[in-house]
Amino acid sequence: MRMYDLIMKKRNGGALTRQEIRFMVEGFTAGKIPDYQMSAMMMAIWFVGMNEEETLHLTMAMAESGEMLDLSAIRETKADKHSTGGVGDKTSLALAPMVAACGVKIAKMSGRGLGHTGGTIDKLESFEGFSTDISTERFIRNVNEVGMSIMGQTRELAPADKLLYALRDVTATVDNMSLIASSIMSKKLAAGADVIVLDVKTGSGAFMKKQEDAFALAREMVRLGKNAGRKTIAVISDMDQPLGNAVGNALEVKEAIETLKGRGPRDFTELCLTLGAWMLLLSGKASSQEEGREKLWETIRDGRALAKLAEFVTAQGGDGETVYHPERLPQASLTREVLSPADGYVERLICDEVGIASLLLGGGRETRESVIDLSVGILLERKVGAAVKKGQRLALLHGNDPEKLSAAHDRLLGAFQIGSMQRQEGPVILGVVED
Amino acid sequence: MRMYDLIMKKRNGGALTRQEIRFMVEGFTAGKIPDYQMSAMMMAIWFVGMNEEETLHLTMAMAESGEMLDLSAIRETKADKHSTGGVGDKTSLALAPMVAACGVKIAKMSGRGLGHTGGTIDKLESFEGFSTDISTERFIRNVNEVGMSIMGQTRELAPADKLLYALRDVTATVDNMSLIASSIMSKKLAAGADVIVLDVKTGSGAFMKKQEDAFALAREMVRLGKNAGRKTIAVISDMDQPLGNAVGNALEVKEAIETLKGRGPRDFTELCLTLGAWMLLLSGKASSQEEGREKLWETIRDGRALAKLAEFVTAQGGDGETVYHPERLPQASLTREVLSPADGYVERLICDEVGIASLLLGGGRETRESVIDLSVGILLERKVGAAVKKGQRLALLHGNDPEKLSAAHDRLLGAFQIGSMQRQEGPVILGVVED
Repeated sequence: MRMYDLIMKKRNGGALTRQEIRFMVEGFTAGKIPDYQMSAMMMAIWFVGMNEEETLHLTMAMAESGEMLDLSAIRETKADKHSTGGVGDKTSLALAPMVAACGVKIAKMSGRGLGHTGGTIDKLESFEGFSTDISTERFIRNVNEVGMSIMGQTRELAPADKLLYALRDVTATVDNMSLIASSIMSKKLAAGADVIVLDVKTGSGAFMKKQEDAFALAREMVRLGKNAGRKTIAVISDMDQPLGNAVGNALEVKEAIETLKGRGPRDFTELCLTLGAWMLLLSGKASSQEEGREKLWETIRDGRALAKLAEFVTAQGGDGETVYHPERLPQASLTREVLSPADGYVERLICDEVGIASLLLGGGRETRESVIDLSVGILLERKVGAAVKKGQRLALLHGNDPEKLSAAHDRLLGAFQIGSMQRQEGPVILGVVED
Repeated sequence: MRMYDLIMKKRNGGALTRQEIRFMVEGFTAGKIPDYQMSAMMMAIWFVGMNEEETLHLTMAMAESGEMLDLSAIRETKADKHSTGGVGDKTSLALAPMVAACGVKIAKMSGRGLGHTGGTIDKLESFEGFSTDISTERFIRNVNEVGMSIMGQTRELAPADKLLYALRDVTATVDNMSLIASSIMSKKLAAGADVIVLDVKTGSGAFMKKQEDAFALAREMVRLGKNAGRKTIAVISDMDQPLGNAVGNALEVKEAIETLKGRGPRDFTELCLTLGAWMLLLSGKASSQEEGREKLWETIRDGRALAKLAEFVTAQGGDGETVYHPERLPQASLTREVLSPADGYVERLICDEVGIASLLLGGGRETRESVIDLSVGILLERKVGAAVKKGQRLALLHGNDPEKLSAAHDRLLGAFQIGSMQRQEGPVILGVVED
């Protein structure tokens, strides 16, 4: 078999067989197929597309290109959640403890953020001493004993995807539905969970700007998950403005803690309950969405969710007591207000601009080597649909550097569109894809 | 400017500007743009195509990526001929002396063959001592004094094309009209001739199997030549069966010498006269095709063409007297007949198979390092349309190794299709593209 012939076949509109896709993925991962042939193939796929079978073969080949996490030592159903990402997305921090408190085992692999804001691991490191750099053995023990654990994504998980994504990223071949779906799902499948709940974001702050694209991606991923034998559903949720009010690592942890006390923002709470109810349903811990939501609320009301978070943080070396003393989280030394320039309504709150404002404060990574300042960030006080008066506070910036605060202030002010039209705030959940 | 953005632009159907194409070609040649981005770009171009302007910019950028041959020291119009190649194509050997004998300066860069048979340089090396490895100064002096010179293609000529072609060759992006045309024309433009006559082959033994593709390529190249300020035309000629009767280096030289004596095969002679008349016409040495053909015939009748070949060979270190004593050319030690297996007519003579038979005898290169046996080859005695009796000779093989002769015999026998249908031999000239 020659890679040249496979490129030609795909270029001419053909479908690759399982054997051909294996040959390609294994050869590429082993360094036997050069980058320049793989990038030509990716471009051919961008134009020609891949059918359902090819996408599944690619996903499985990438999933099996490295270590497949063996979670058989966890006796019960293991659930995982994946979000396609956005600004203010601290979902895992609140969702996982609630679901774990209901008895579903959460075995989650997470990454650091390379976008404007930190990832789940960065956020969790706001807890003094906390680490996701743990062995697989400890990860499995924690899931068994605590009910949840979050491990940093190991280098060995789906290495083919890592290599391929890096190549696609510099050759303008990222935005293809089959390739995006197989990239995400190869990692999820390699991570070993039985239940996979996907949170596919859509809107100006999401990778999928258009709802129809988000639904298409969701369908593709759900199909892949099911064909690989995992219980999989996808929720389509709004990311046209930031999720919740807090943007920035420690600030988001604080908001997650507030949510576990029942005092979280409406949109964020709703998303956690919806995703969580699906996790309970698919894991057999609830027989309906309603029952699932009720069970989750119960963990908030009786404090079990908050206690689970504390237990989890402690089990991974962190100061669990912080959950009850959020003032121990990293705190910025300075604040600066962002005031409304006019009377009117918030017509738009441009998601990416909010993210960049947080990045300017030091809350994200510009390069892989950047060190994040966990204490900085933004608290949004007015979101889309809110009435404002000129001079009224729109947001409060937290920072440690007056110059950075000033730059972030100007950027964030530009993210708010104030006008005379009162837009109704839309629902956070836009749909569910079950198959 | 970033290569990534250029890939994205082309992928999305855009047209690249002159500046963007320069950036890309120069960056790639300098090693600043990696292969994997260039191959993704080539695949995007394969799908999207390039317009006339883009193709010209690419051609010029590649032509100017290395040394542009400065032929200004040659006082008169310089003409060059290029053939897209085929089996038995010894055109330059007979054409150049005739045209030079009419006073047109022939300044030609040639390559070695990497196909089944040798290239022009290999064929010329059948003359003892002959070399194309000469300096540019000597090349120019020879053109001025002798009227013609053939130089081996230097490494410095259009290096971008060399690099790009090597990449396209392994990424299934060769067969795009704009890319093929710009590859050929970049080298022709860099080689500095004022008049460029292109011989575009079509048929089973040609790169362009279909006539319509050959015409399209011809139009593209003629347009490029004219836009670059060169007088350019293209002749479309048949390569459905080998050209002339001889295939193999020394054998083809012998056939070219016979042709300069007026005793060449009909098809080969016709092609030389047509291409030659165009060269005279575009160089201002004839005012019509008819006049051009008459002048060329005159050089055969009075022996000037043959004398010019001898003079040229001598000027490049070879034994020019061989022209009058062809028995001095390398001769194989053995021959073997290929006999007709049946009564009937030659319905087809599969070009590529004839080429492979010659390769099996040792007359071509399997790899870049192969050493060619100049003495071996094939003399075809029956071509398409000929009546044959069972046991009658179809061809005579010349070789030095009984085993190779046997393998070549079987292969060549398979190249002849003998049947009951008498096909009319078609014309060798299928058309001319003037603009």
